[in-house]
Amino acid sequence: MIAERLKHLKPYTAGEQPRGREFIKLNTNENPYPPAPEVSSTLRTFDPDLLRLYPDPTCGELRGAIGESLGLGSENVFAGNGSDEVLSFAFYAFFDGAHGPLLMPQFTYSFYPVYCDFYGIPYRRLPLREDFSIDLSAYLAAGQASGIVFANPNAPTGVAVSRAEIEHLLARFPKDRVILVDEAYVDYGGESVVPLLREHENLLVVSTFSKSRALAGMRLGFAYGNRPLIDALFAVKDSFNSYPVDALAQAVGTAAARAGSYYAEINGRIIATRRSFASALLERGAQVLPSSANFLFVSLPGRTGREVYAHLKERGILVRHFEIPGISDFVRISMGTDEQMRILLGEIDRWTNSPS
Amino acid sequence: MIAERLKHLKPYTAGEQPRGREFIKLNTNENPYPPAPEVSSTLRTFDPDLLRLYPDPTCGELRGAIGESLGLGSENVFAGNGSDEVLSFAFYAFFDGAHGPLLMPQFTYSFYPVYCDFYGIPYRRLPLREDFSIDLSAYLAAGQASGIVFANPNAPTGVAVSRAEIEHLLARFPKDRVILVDEAYVDYGGESVVPLLREHENLLVVSTFSKSRALAGMRLGFAYGNRPLIDALFAVKDSFNSYPVDALAQAVGTAAARAGSYYAEINGRIIATRRSFASALLERGAQVLPSSANFLFVSLPGRTGREVYAHLKERGILVRHFEIPGISDFVRISMGTDEQMRILLGEIDRWTNSPS
Repeated sequence: MIAERLKHLKPYTAGEQPRGREFIKLNTNENPYPPAPEVSSTLRTFDPDLLRLYPDPTCGELRGAIGESLGLGSENVFAGNGSDEVLSFAFYAFFDGAHGPLLMPQFTYSFYPVYCDFYGIPYRRLPLREDFSIDLSAYLAAGQASGIVFANPNAPTGVAVSRAEIEHLLARFPKDRVILVDEAYVDYGGESVVPLLREHENLLVVSTFSKSRALAGMRLGFAYGNRPLIDALFAVKDSFNSYPVDALAQAVGTAAARAGSYYAEINGRIIATRRSFASALLERGAQVLPSSANFLFVSLPGRTGREVYAHLKERGILVRHFEIPGISDFVRISMGTDEQMRILLGEIDRWTNSPS
Repeated sequence: MIAERLKHLKPYTAGEQPRGREFIKLNTNENPYPPAPEVSSTLRTFDPDLLRLYPDPTCGELRGAIGESLGLGSENVFAGNGSDEVLSFAFYAFFDGAHGPLLMPQFTYSFYPVYCDFYGIPYRRLPLREDFSIDLSAYLAAGQASGIVFANPNAPTGVAVSRAEIEHLLARFPKDRVILVDEAYVDYGGESVVPLLREHENLLVVSTFSKSRALAGMRLGFAYGNRPLIDALFAVKDSFNSYPVDALAQAVGTAAARAGSYYAEINGRIIATRRSFASALLERGAQVLPSSANFLFVSLPGRTGREVYAHLKERGILVRHFEIPGISDFVRISMGTDEQMRILLGEIDRWTNSPS
């Protein structure tokens, strides 16, 4: 009864979303601060009678508001039901293996290979440098490729490449193949390549409101690009689900897009927390990758990632661990409030100072 | 830059969702009555701070509430971002052409062939009877098939087949191939086949909250089936988007699932409106197919469907017309309030009584 194509899939495993027990939840890179006050007032004043009607299938107002915040026209913005959906549409639209495999970093958002398997797209992973940074020159040297995808800042490392490095890549990569830059974490210190869209027709930027806009529960993701790419994403959407973004999500997203100064403030706080938490870990001899994201990728001396994960979970703190050779010594710790990080640090100190 | 697979797609065309001018909107089968009061109160009391967290990826509470209303366990319920998404996942999971084409009625929900093209699934359309009913015996006589999909009541005709006819089909169709019954409109007089799930492992039922639950704007769709089918839908979801149903939609959907008596009342009103409106049209010599849905498929004597559509649109009333040979004489008219139908009837009378 099950189609052959499904039998070979290894679905993505999302971070735990525990129900019941209260955890200090530092495992899925959610924002520790609430969404903007404008989000609350949108919920309070939304006319429930509107829910009986289909939402705007084009998300016109929302795309306009996002575009305005970035200096783009709404025709250069696509909106979907979380950036996972937008990524899935983009993989379908732009990557088919015609010119070779899709290139991606060996360690990056682990949903990318799942999309490839879902749509039957050949792909090839290129190793990171020793310091876990992405070596973009390797993507030019790799030979045949139907496209490139990477997260910047990268996940789960948090390490960023500069806009200049990406511009260098764009200038040399074939112009008829898409380079997809996933900027889910860009608001925590990365350099967005949105300003490069004007000169590069094959650049697609994907972003999300789940992290820096504190709206993971609302499912809003976006793509920015030139008309042919955005039009292709619309064609995919209209072959999958005419209305993927519900009416409330459109209203809430529009309010959040216009609340830039609130979000700049809370995300500034998260960057400050990351700095002080990283210093505290380094003082304790931990390996901490330089992060431009709202999380740190951390290895504690003499402990495997699995041990750190398990120890902290028992004490009510969730972090993310990947049992993957090459990064299994690390855990990914989302930045919470300063108080939450203080508690976490206390647990680490109690553990590492006690006889093992 | 665009993948080959996309170049051959003809995306689905949804009914118009006009912004700006106010229409009497009878073109997309929305409910003319507001969602249940419990939906409003859920919106008013929802804690916006929860939106910073990812929603429950399994929709546990929502699936439990739906299951309870139908006498099913939550393990027999799948929830997605509108029934379009659920259908798309189901086409991916169950139909691959291994045993022959997917069979569907010649006239039915026009998204089905789009999903087939999207995933490369061969399909074959079987003609309706002269009276526009689905002849299920033809599906048994068709020979090789990898599965069957149809809407019941069917769209855009509104004509239903009985549960007994579907049971007869299930008893004779190969048990290793899925029969998907799309019950989007079942609450307006159709017979649901949910009671047949216990005995038929290859039956999948899809439903939506867009019509009878007055929540088209919220995007909630469901599938009901036995464990292997529901588990397969979860595997597809987890290879596409871990969290397709946002936190608010889950809360609102749970409230709506528990508000059965309110919805029985408004849907009863819609059925009464359909009866009286159908009588009025028949009195005027129109051809009106016997409908078990919240719409009527109607042909006015001496007018093409396109003429009816265009004339009414000019007068501020939107109905749906399909420029497809075999049904192009018809328009599909969603049932509005009695007052809206009275205005529509007045326009028809003014038109047909005036010299053309």
